[in-house]
Amino acid sequence: MAEKTKLITPRLPRGFEDRTPGEIAAVGAMIDKIKQVYERYGFDPVETPLFEYTETLGKFLPDTDRPNAGVFSLQDDDEQWMSLRYDLTAPLARYFAEHFETLPKPYRSYRQGYVFRNEKPGPGRFRQFMQFDADTVGAPGPEADAEMCMMMADVMDALGLEGQYVVRVNNRKVLDGVLATAGIVSEEQKLTVLRAIDKLDKFGSDGVRLLLGAGRKDESGDFTKGAGLSDQQIDPILAYVDSGVPAPGVEKGSNAHVVATINTLAGLIGGSAAGLEGVQELASIFGLVSAAGFAGRVVLDPSVVRGLEYYTGPVFEIELTFKVQNEKGQDVVFGSVGGGGRYDGLVSRFRREPVPATGFSIGVSRLANALKLTGNLGATEPQGPVVVLVMDKDQTAGYQAMVSELRKAGIRAEMFLGSTKNFGKQVAYADKRNSPIVIIEGSQEREQGILQVKDLIAGKQAAQDITDNAEWKAARPGQFEIKREELVSAVQKLLSEQ
Amino acid sequence: MAEKTKLITPRLPRGFEDRTPGEIAAVGAMIDKIKQVYERYGFDPVETPLFEYTETLGKFLPDTDRPNAGVFSLQDDDEQWMSLRYDLTAPLARYFAEHFETLPKPYRSYRQGYVFRNEKPGPGRFRQFMQFDADTVGAPGPEADAEMCMMMADVMDALGLEGQYVVRVNNRKVLDGVLATAGIVSEEQKLTVLRAIDKLDKFGSDGVRLLLGAGRKDESGDFTKGAGLSDQQIDPILAYVDSGVPAPGVEKGSNAHVVATINTLAGLIGGSAAGLEGVQELASIFGLVSAAGFAGRVVLDPSVVRGLEYYTGPVFEIELTFKVQNEKGQDVVFGSVGGGGRYDGLVSRFRREPVPATGFSIGVSRLANALKLTGNLGATEPQGPVVVLVMDKDQTAGYQAMVSELRKAGIRAEMFLGSTKNFGKQVAYADKRNSPIVIIEGSQEREQGILQVKDLIAGKQAAQDITDNAEWKAARPGQFEIKREELVSAVQKLLSEQ
Repeated sequence: MAEKTKLITPRLPRGFEDRTPGEIAAVGAMIDKIKQVYERYGFDPVETPLFEYTETLGKFLPDTDRPNAGVFSLQDDDEQWMSLRYDLTAPLARYFAEHFETLPKPYRSYRQGYVFRNEKPGPGRFRQFMQFDADTVGAPGPEADAEMCMMMADVMDALGLEGQYVVRVNNRKVLDGVLATAGIVSEEQKLTVLRAIDKLDKFGSDGVRLLLGAGRKDESGDFTKGAGLSDQQIDPILAYVDSGVPAPGVEKGSNAHVVATINTLAGLIGGSAAGLEGVQELASIFGLVSAAGFAGRVVLDPSVVRGLEYYTGPVFEIELTFKVQNEKGQDVVFGSVGGGGRYDGLVSRFRREPVPATGFSIGVSRLANALKLTGNLGATEPQGPVVVLVMDKDQTAGYQAMVSELRKAGIRAEMFLGSTKNFGKQVAYADKRNSPIVIIEGSQEREQGILQVKDLIAGKQAAQDITDNAEWKAARPGQFEIKREELVSAVQKLLSEQ
Repeated sequence: MAEKTKLITPRLPRGFEDRTPGEIAAVGAMIDKIKQVYERYGFDPVETPLFEYTETLGKFLPDTDRPNAGVFSLQDDDEQWMSLRYDLTAPLARYFAEHFETLPKPYRSYRQGYVFRNEKPGPGRFRQFMQFDADTVGAPGPEADAEMCMMMADVMDALGLEGQYVVRVNNRKVLDGVLATAGIVSEEQKLTVLRAIDKLDKFGSDGVRLLLGAGRKDESGDFTKGAGLSDQQIDPILAYVDSGVPAPGVEKGSNAHVVATINTLAGLIGGSAAGLEGVQELASIFGLVSAAGFAGRVVLDPSVVRGLEYYTGPVFEIELTFKVQNEKGQDVVFGSVGGGGRYDGLVSRFRREPVPATGFSIGVSRLANALKLTGNLGATEPQGPVVVLVMDKDQTAGYQAMVSELRKAGIRAEMFLGSTKNFGKQVAYADKRNSPIVIIEGSQEREQGILQVKDLIAGKQAAQDITDNAEWKAARPGQFEIKREELVSAVQKLLSEQ
């Protein structure tokens, strides 16, 4: 068959990836730690399927102008459009609305799973990736927002990132107030301003000023058209963006810093009612943050905007503050590994009543990469099994019996199942599997009722220099004899010593 | 907004389901037990993404005549067709071929995850469901097949199903030999015969005879067209199907039974070389099974065929043998919860060389349902958090501080975050969450520096009869006072007593 038919190239579609044993184990351990914090905070798991009706999910992805862009969709047999979820929040809104009568309210849940984006993939940018969310639905007050931020700070601590992160908090209503005062009310203009502010980290205040005005030319000469605002409109927006910078002598993230920033913001919102609401909510959130001892870990930052369109008030972001090198070799902060906010309108798409909600989403792969960089990401390679070599093909029942004995004693073990009879190749297999021990029984040993036990960890260095069977038998690095009936006890002893 | 726009009905597409906390916990515990057995057998985890190129997956689903039927597919931006995986075996073949140079050979891996079938959903039949597979790729001998079957038997034991299952084994080559002897060689005719044999459990030998001949009329009068074979052709096939029935005095599943069946099969294959190979492989498998002490748990059953088209030799099936009632109220055995077999051709679709492989797949939801029926599926509802009630809206910082103290001590705790100020409703929330304890601090308690601790487990019965705040305060079932500073120690003490 292989000769006649055209061979298929084994490859993945762009933007998808396989996961190895070490990765699965390390990320699994990380997820367990996050789960423990979520559960201590009173959240219970729930899981929704990967498909939803397209209308259920809505169109809230940032930077998508075409309908359904960014989402994998297909038509069902009955002509209805279904989509793979692009986040874990929209399906939660559907779940809560569907089970409204029976769920406790407020409803605290956490969810972990894959989400899909039908976008152009790039380095570190996949079309299937894992998120790990927590949400409180049916909780109107800033207490719920404050709790979300403090929980994320505790998650970072639980992962060993003490002192290497801040949870940054802002409120979209404040920005709305500032924009209303500057005479910017159309949704489209607001979105352009939001995207300009989102570039603060990248281009600085001066760059944002250009993007809000006529436009900005980058180093390569490419020109990005600006929002076309007047200086009178730009000034309060930049004052807003800069309001998070502490005055000289004020410690960044301190209570004094928070109070000063809130006062500045109150002065920038003019008479806007939404703006005032936003400032009051921030004051409440930081009152709670301070009382619970999270000042400095949870900080006020007016430049946080977040891309998703369904946020209605407070927005959050976890920023890892340690430095890494970017593709140009420059030192930059690692940046965001998760974010969230309040989305009071998402559930009301299904129900004739307001349903307030707030939540947080962690980007699992990105966080795992960060932990790898800081050395907080646990073991990477599994310990291999004890391998019983097949010295005589007609004796597999006997080798199988040895393996069964070891397994019954709870020891990871297997008989070599490959086609080669070559001793060195079988040992090389065991090495590649990270095996601690191989068991050898040739005809001579069988006659004498003994086994050869080879300590691969002690003998690994020596093994690399010996390829010949005869030479091996002479040197036998880390190798010793036992009686056949001592198999389990000898292996247990050696494993405990290794 | 809710008044003006059309509301969306919150519902899932047909054939998809949400999973609750109890289910997630119970299935998670089940999966951990299976994992432990797989790992003890020397298998390592690997994970592939949910999408593959459609040509990578191939068309191996049973009973699908239309191209792409049974599979969810969509076209990528570059016009290439991608599909959601329909099982975990086809992606493994791609993974092994893609990483052929670096993977250990034989390659032992286990994989757990969702698969998708674009089929008509029905009771217990979903379009997204979880499988949990183990495979050995690059192992040509019957030792690998025997090990798969023994491992599945050990998995069933680990789940507490001792004596309630059999792993049934057959070999497609034997059937090929029998069919060749009967003059049946076209793939289409073979498939019709396979499907007829697959109905043995349902219709018995006589029903299969009708399906192999002119056809069969069921109770409702519906007629299924038969394979149209002559009696001379049907007789050896039925002799083959019945060859698994033990002779009088021979214990089912015993070594004597296996030997007798293999002898009968050897007589039915005529001069077919494939048939002889199949009989020899079965003899080797059961030699190993018997030597390892798995006789009776792993049994030979010539009626096992398995639907997937990629199997090339040995095929396996785990059957749970305890009785359940079917939709007609009749007692039937629970039946299959997993299966597998040898698929030597699947990897060679990618490579110009034979790559032998064998594997097993467990249907996770179906197995979980079985464990629920036998009482082996562990806890179903999580223990709720300690709930600190909000008696005064302006004291949330103080309540939040209590919650923080409890959480720091590792205790699951939360402040009530709903909009209601009603005491009874807050306690009802705690009850619904399975909370063990609520903490109450009104203005009076605050002045005195005390807290009320309410034992919800002791007081649950009493609480159901009391709805009035005043009456509650008088009765205080299971309620007692502590000093504010004793919060953590008092809660710890009560939790340990509950």
